[in-house]
Amino acid sequence: MTRRVSSVELRVRYAETDRMGVVYHTNYLVWCEIGRTNHIRESGMTYREMEDAGVGLAVAEASVRYHAPARYDDLVRVETVLAEVASRTVTFDYTIVNAESGARLATARTLLVSIDRNHRVSALPAEMRARLEADAVREA
Amino acid sequence: MTRRVSSVELRVRYAETDRMGVVYHTNYLVWCEIGRTNHIRESGMTYREMEDAGVGLAVAEASVRYHAPARYDDLVRVETVLAEVASRTVTFDYTIVNAESGARLATARTLLVSIDRNHRVSALPAEMRARLEADAVREA
Amino acid sequence: MTRRVSSVELRVRYAETDRMGVVYHTNYLVWCEIGRTNHIRESGMTYREMEDAGVGLAVAEASVRYHAPARYDDLVRVETVLAEVASRTVTFDYTIVNAESGARLATARTLLVSIDRNHRVSALPAEMRARLEADAVREA
Amino acid sequence: MTRRVSSVELRVRYAETDRMGVVYHTNYLVWCEIGRTNHIRESGMTYREMEDAGVGLAVAEASVRYHAPARYDDLVRVETVLAEVASRTVTFDYTIVNAESGARLATARTLLVSIDRNHRVSALPAEMRARLEADAVREA
Repeated sequence: MTRRVSSVELRVRYAETDRMGVVYHTNYLVWCEIGRTNHIRESGMTYREMEDAGVGLAVAEASVRYHAPARYDDLVRVETVLAEVASRTVTFDYTIVNAESGARLATARTLLVSIDRNHRVSALPAEMRARLEADAVREA
Repeated sequence: MTRRVSSVELRVRYAETDRMGVVYHTNYLVWCEIGRTNHIRESGMTYREMEDAGVGLAVAEASVRYHAPARYDDLVRVETVLAEVASRTVTFDYTIVNAESGARLATARTLLVSIDRNHRVSALPAEMRARLEADAVREA
Repeated sequence: MTRRVSSVELRVRYAETDRMGVVYHTNYLVWCEIGRTNHIRESGMTYREMEDAGVGLAVAEASVRYHAPARYDDLVRVETVLAEVASRTVTFDYTIVNAESGARLATARTLLVSIDRNHRVSALPAEMRARLEADAVREA
Repeated sequence: MTRRVSSVELRVRYAETDRMGVVYHTNYLVWCEIGRTNHIRESGMTYREMEDAGVGLAVAEASVRYHAPARYDDLVRVETVLAEVASRTVTFDYTIVNAESGARLATARTLLVSIDRNHRVSALPAEMRARLEADAVREA
């Protein structure tokens, strides 16, 4: 059994650096959001469509380990894996690497909770869940 | 005739700096938003209440001149003046200074357009306009 | 034995919200940075002075749990505790609450690594460590 | 005589939206920075190389007009033109459009000042100026 790894690249913005000369640490979590958006898109729907249909995914937990700094103008790759889908939650794992050297920059995990238009926790609609699960688990 | 100058202070966040060692330039406009929010609050209503009542102020034009850099942990003061109120627009002027030395860091102007819940341009409700105008023009 | 809890308040910026109508999740970690900066200041030195002396604290791990959303214009309080000081690392815990209702919004932990001017991991200078430790542990 | 227009596309991040449901206004200036970085790269050097060589371009003036909002997940294109090069300043013009509909979202201008490693205003090195000027003015 393997899980699909989606990949998206981005170039580091000047705005994302801080006075230490490297990327400010919270921006890696913004990049995870880009990885997640891209991962969902590749599963055949978009997160915008999910929200338009009244289903939100709110970040309930986030954790990051920083291994090496990204710098201005670096080309960075975010690799995203859907780790787990439950009735009301979705967990993604991320590995952020320098796209040119392959060096690992950060690893992260986020747990998202499915909410309705009124921001109440609610079960993921079956079709969306099926799409994410089909995506998560693929036989080798 | 004088115009009321409102004043609000903030301390520069590490997140706001960039690899040049100074504050990244767009953050001064975020500080203007803080000045504007504070200015409206001091006129006796809050911008959040305006939005809850269905009236938004969308930035239509913004300009900034940068005079000297702000740095991490500096105490900064935003001085805001309501420059003009028309039926559908409000213009604010800002002066951003180092609160300790008094040095002028930036000057800015924003033109905001009044919009309704559907994001259509619409006249400012009379009561809100009156409140802002009363605030803008005070006899010396 | 008790640990000092430092407290700092801030008002939520419009810039910090997202289209879900609440604060975008990475901003809580920016607020933790404000709490940390404030906590160090209250221990009798400033983080800026530490950097000027060639000692940086780089975030090596960060984790957050989100309990309830903060909204635009909310007054928020960041409570910071120094959890642990080792030769090369410092760990802070944060609780972020709505300053008016007292509701708990988020809890977070960051592990910081002491680095030198060349961004190499290096032991915290004894005086700085002593200051932080004195601060961390106070007899009841 | 025509001026080269460089083009770069980006997808709107969730982080860039605000509670009005659209992109927060200062982010368009961040996108201008991306357009500028890309424009310089296409002229045969990179802005990172300029900084490594001790030459910075600090934003001294910025202005934006907002025509229509960008939304989450929109594909946006930044078109950048080098408007003027003088001994110590460089001016860029930007047009930001929705890449799918072609609708104009914002127009902007920034004036940048050449600074040395000590952040003092200084003339652009001849070679860099020549490269930018060659780029700016091309016979039709």
